[in-house]
Amino acid sequence: MAKIGVLLSGCGVFDGTEIHEAVLTLLALDRAGAEIVCMAPDMDQYHVINHLTQEVMEEKRNVLVESARIARGEIKDLKDVTASDLDGLIIPGGFGAAKNLSDFAVKGAEATVNPDVKRLIDEFVEADKPVGALCIAPATLTKALSDKNPEVTIGNDEATAMAIEAMGGQHRTCAVDMIHFDDKNNIVTTPAYMLGPGIKDVAEGIRKLVDKVLELTG
Amino acid sequence: MAKIGVLLSGCGVFDGTEIHEAVLTLLALDRAGAEIVCMAPDMDQYHVINHLTQEVMEEKRNVLVESARIARGEIKDLKDVTASDLDGLIIPGGFGAAKNLSDFAVKGAEATVNPDVKRLIDEFVEADKPVGALCIAPATLTKALSDKNPEVTIGNDEATAMAIEAMGGQHRTCAVDMIHFDDKNNIVTTPAYMLGPGIKDVAEGIRKLVDKVLELTG
Repeated sequence: MAKIGVLLSGCGVFDGTEIHEAVLTLLALDRAGAEIVCMAPDMDQYHVINHLTQEVMEEKRNVLVESARIARGEIKDLKDVTASDLDGLIIPGGFGAAKNLSDFAVKGAEATVNPDVKRLIDEFVEADKPVGALCIAPATLTKALSDKNPEVTIGNDEATAMAIEAMGGQHRTCAVDMIHFDDKNNIVTTPAYMLGPGIKDVAEGIRKLVDKVLELTG
Repeated sequence: MAKIGVLLSGCGVFDGTEIHEAVLTLLALDRAGAEIVCMAPDMDQYHVINHLTQEVMEEKRNVLVESARIARGEIKDLKDVTASDLDGLIIPGGFGAAKNLSDFAVKGAEATVNPDVKRLIDEFVEADKPVGALCIAPATLTKALSDKNPEVTIGNDEATAMAIEAMGGQHRTCAVDMIHFDDKNNIVTTPAYMLGPGIKDVAEGIRKLVDKVLELTG
């Protein structure tokens, strides 16, 4: 049974992990018989967004604590996880992947990746273990692997695609129900809610991404 | 195209809507071609639980604002929704369904249902429109309809089943991948995470519940 890490970044599309993408990832992994290990960094969120009004709220929330909502309490602190514990890694999207796991949403191509996130991604790629990334998460993945010229997709958004190229990546246009596979780096990406439009559409690409990641675990 | 309301109660299994159950409900509705209308009451949560430690947190959160995380911002205030706007209603579980939509988790059979929740459920049943409820939500539904002797399932938990009977309902044992249909009241229920054990298991019962609710909309 493959053991797959799911790296969360909070709980909610505007300041954390996109909830549908995370749940659809867990569903596809469970249906395929994989063992799931959810994880998140123990740090304050970049900010808290009121998802009704889209305004910033004057409060602090912790990425690991909020991610635990999606994981029903079964979650590890990212700092306690290494690639040697796992066969593959998947990073769902949502702004948390570009506000908490890195600051790409704020700084674009000048982004910095959270050191523990970069460490884990580097460990997976160095061990030839597959990494999947959804939605905007491929931007953070590209920054982490900027010396490896990763090929990724975030759908077809031109500004984001240009930023990915500026960070040393190669962007490939992709439909929401499809995946892009970088066979040099063992990376699988899908646009998910960068394209939408609805949950049934993103579910298709996510299922294909999960199946490909599991296939790559051998 | 059937228009189905999804009544949320926060965002997270221990103090709000069970996230997987809500997302799987949205997925099944979207795949079946239904139009989805998410809604939640504009009120403080009963409390906020740290989902990592299960301890109560010293803060306040609003049910509608937190539910908006699951709905990606597309959500209505429950008070602005009536059964005449919709063809059916589904209430996912999680403790929010028994802490915020009612206080069943605290008071058991002596529970009180939130007045707007009771109003909406009454409107649906009086209009012969179907209502689905998952996990612990059938307890709140039973209290709302205690004069109608509703038949529901929450799986096989004896204490909860006894409380349901004490509130005027009839409890039926049911497997996680099955549903119970009360044809007298047009109510469909499934145990979901009252039984679990995993997301792929609850997905089956939820898909069947959604299909039955849509069938009942004619």
